[in-house]
Amino acid sequence: MGIIVQKYGGSSVANAERIKNVAKRVIKTKKQGNAVVVVVSALGDTTDTLLKMAYEITPAPPERELDMLLATGEQVSVALLSMAIYSLGYQTISLTGQQVGIVTDAVHTKAKILDIRSERILKAIKEDKIVIVAGFQGVTVDNNITTLGRGGSDTTAVALAAKLKADICEIYTDVDGVYTADPRIVPNAFKIFKLSFDEMLEMAATGAKVLQARSVEFGRNHNVNIHVRSSFSEEPGTLIKEADETMEKAIISGITHDIDEAKITILGVPDRPGIAAKVFRVLADANVNVDMIIQNVSEKGCTDISFTVVKNDLAKAKDVVDKVAVELKARGTACDEGIAKISLIGAGMRTHPGVAADMFSVLAENNVNIEMISTSSIKISCVINEKDMNLAVKALHDKFCSGK
Amino acid sequence: MGIIVQKYGGSSVANAERIKNVAKRVIKTKKQGNAVVVVVSALGDTTDTLLKMAYEITPAPPERELDMLLATGEQVSVALLSMAIYSLGYQTISLTGQQVGIVTDAVHTKAKILDIRSERILKAIKEDKIVIVAGFQGVTVDNNITTLGRGGSDTTAVALAAKLKADICEIYTDVDGVYTADPRIVPNAFKIFKLSFDEMLEMAATGAKVLQARSVEFGRNHNVNIHVRSSFSEEPGTLIKEADETMEKAIISGITHDIDEAKITILGVPDRPGIAAKVFRVLADANVNVDMIIQNVSEKGCTDISFTVVKNDLAKAKDVVDKVAVELKARGTACDEGIAKISLIGAGMRTHPGVAADMFSVLAENNVNIEMISTSSIKISCVINEKDMNLAVKALHDKFCSGK
Repeated sequence: MGIIVQKYGGSSVANAERIKNVAKRVIKTKKQGNAVVVVVSALGDTTDTLLKMAYEITPAPPERELDMLLATGEQVSVALLSMAIYSLGYQTISLTGQQVGIVTDAVHTKAKILDIRSERILKAIKEDKIVIVAGFQGVTVDNNITTLGRGGSDTTAVALAAKLKADICEIYTDVDGVYTADPRIVPNAFKIFKLSFDEMLEMAATGAKVLQARSVEFGRNHNVNIHVRSSFSEEPGTLIKEADETMEKAIISGITHDIDEAKITILGVPDRPGIAAKVFRVLADANVNVDMIIQNVSEKGCTDISFTVVKNDLAKAKDVVDKVAVELKARGTACDEGIAKISLIGAGMRTHPGVAADMFSVLAENNVNIEMISTSSIKISCVINEKDMNLAVKALHDKFCSGK
Repeated sequence: MGIIVQKYGGSSVANAERIKNVAKRVIKTKKQGNAVVVVVSALGDTTDTLLKMAYEITPAPPERELDMLLATGEQVSVALLSMAIYSLGYQTISLTGQQVGIVTDAVHTKAKILDIRSERILKAIKEDKIVIVAGFQGVTVDNNITTLGRGGSDTTAVALAAKLKADICEIYTDVDGVYTADPRIVPNAFKIFKLSFDEMLEMAATGAKVLQARSVEFGRNHNVNIHVRSSFSEEPGTLIKEADETMEKAIISGITHDIDEAKITILGVPDRPGIAAKVFRVLADANVNVDMIIQNVSEKGCTDISFTVVKNDLAKAKDVVDKVAVELKARGTACDEGIAKISLIGAGMRTHPGVAADMFSVLAENNVNIEMISTSSIKISCVINEKDMNLAVKALHDKFCSGK
């Protein structure tokens, strides 16, 4: 008997009717002769509601207490799903992160999993029970409740699948897989049936919202096959696994976009060794995650340094950078929130030179100005003006993904 | 440094404003040089909301999962109160029942406390932290979450006070103490400043809603002084402690009423030994709690047996009784939901004969018919028609509690 781990997101369990549907789906998998371990997120927008309650109390809630608060969301979900499955005649047991023994470090609100104890789950499986695990949460060795940060339930599911050596980790969501581009922008975008971990990682990192990069990384490190699919249909979704012979040999698997970033430029910085180190050290110290970094060639001993940060961090980053600019005797700083990052992802790129040139040509033909460029072996990203984004994504999809 | 345990009910923490007020109150006690351990109930009507969610899933949710669900209510409260206190500059730690180590039996939804581990609380007190404990919940030795049933947070507070040898257990609620009668019925009812455990027990058992009988019993067994007071005022409330010399020597401490019960009568039962045993055995087997029991004198070898049950159990009790009536060849059964139980409570009754006669006279003078009578050494209860209740309570208060 194989073990299947299924994860259902918040929208899949947003109300009683949907919880009952998930129950039926879980039971169907069980009836096919599998042991089933289910990971559930908080109902609908519960997490936002809880956060709002916290901020009504204080603008700066202590993070240990935030975790205590937020963890209740998933606890409600597991209890209700367990009731729904039980009412259909199946034995179940719901477990919190603490009860499973999902041991994390003590970095509250973004804890990392250190270890998963599988005894209690394996015992329940032996008793023929369907196991329902609260996603997103863990416990420190000192018995404090932690949460895993955004997309944490995906990570819980993949980590559990790794620990239990599950046949597969199914991630049920409100879309039916990973698409070649966002169908709201590109109506003829189509579903990608297979993706390598590396490609999915790049897609997640460049704007595909369907899976968090962290859970994909966990899947890659432990070789857990991940199936992203819809909880509202029976259609197969997107299978994410190690690259192998059977995979489609598409040069470009997909096109992603991201409007959550902003650009900061430090103008006229003296071009001396150690300047970039200085700038990005103070940003790191302020806990600002920097994505793309561009330093232009020096002109008259001066250079401009541009980088992108998520918009939520912009105010904090601007503060830090303004100070450092004075210190470095730079000419000034500039911010731009009206940017979009568009990316081509594809393992085939490795063996097909010229993809970058083709991409830039398509953008040029459409009069789209490129502000920043960043590449990896399977990805090319360009920062452009936000107003050109839809046009650019459509044109790139026509060029690279059509005709399949 | 003494330890004070404070318990705040759901209405005291119903919204952000009230939670902040509770935080100030807790800090005030801390500033007076006490170690403070706070027990909190779920916010406002959270428990009812959670129950409604469960019943939307299934009419018969498994009790283990109900506990999993309901326990989240108090977890939310402790996190928010901890944030509120922290934001005012004090060190706090919130703890679930599991984290404290409130070990209970495995009778889900009405678990009994077996043991409280105090190490973690004592450690936090040593670190000068205000400790916030989730009421109403515990954990079994198998690490399953349990809840303690109605009024469970009171029991948590009193049990913690006993374990920690606290100076006092303060129960904050939305009324400012225990009154001689319900002020909504008797406008000139007044606050009782001191009550013995026995009297409070009888009052709780006969309809006073302010404290659950179970927590009072715990207080009596462990000699924990309980102070029932309002979270919205600074006035002293009602102190419940062992009877001592300094207590007021009132004959009657208070008058309670209860309209949550219904009466069942089995008519024309053959008057043979073992009949009552048979009837109440089958009711006990069906988990029906019976309160008052009356058996009239035999007439022509037949008798009527009447008893009261809480209205929630009426349908179940009626089923059982109808069957047993056929078996016993009784003439039939009858139900009456339109009854009220009114009770006089007072330790002075023990040494003042004639209280019962006075009570019956007052009722007779007011044309109130008595349907059932039951007495203990410090209580007399009469079942009357519900429509006569307000009149009867007022008249009894005039007779026994006025002029103090």
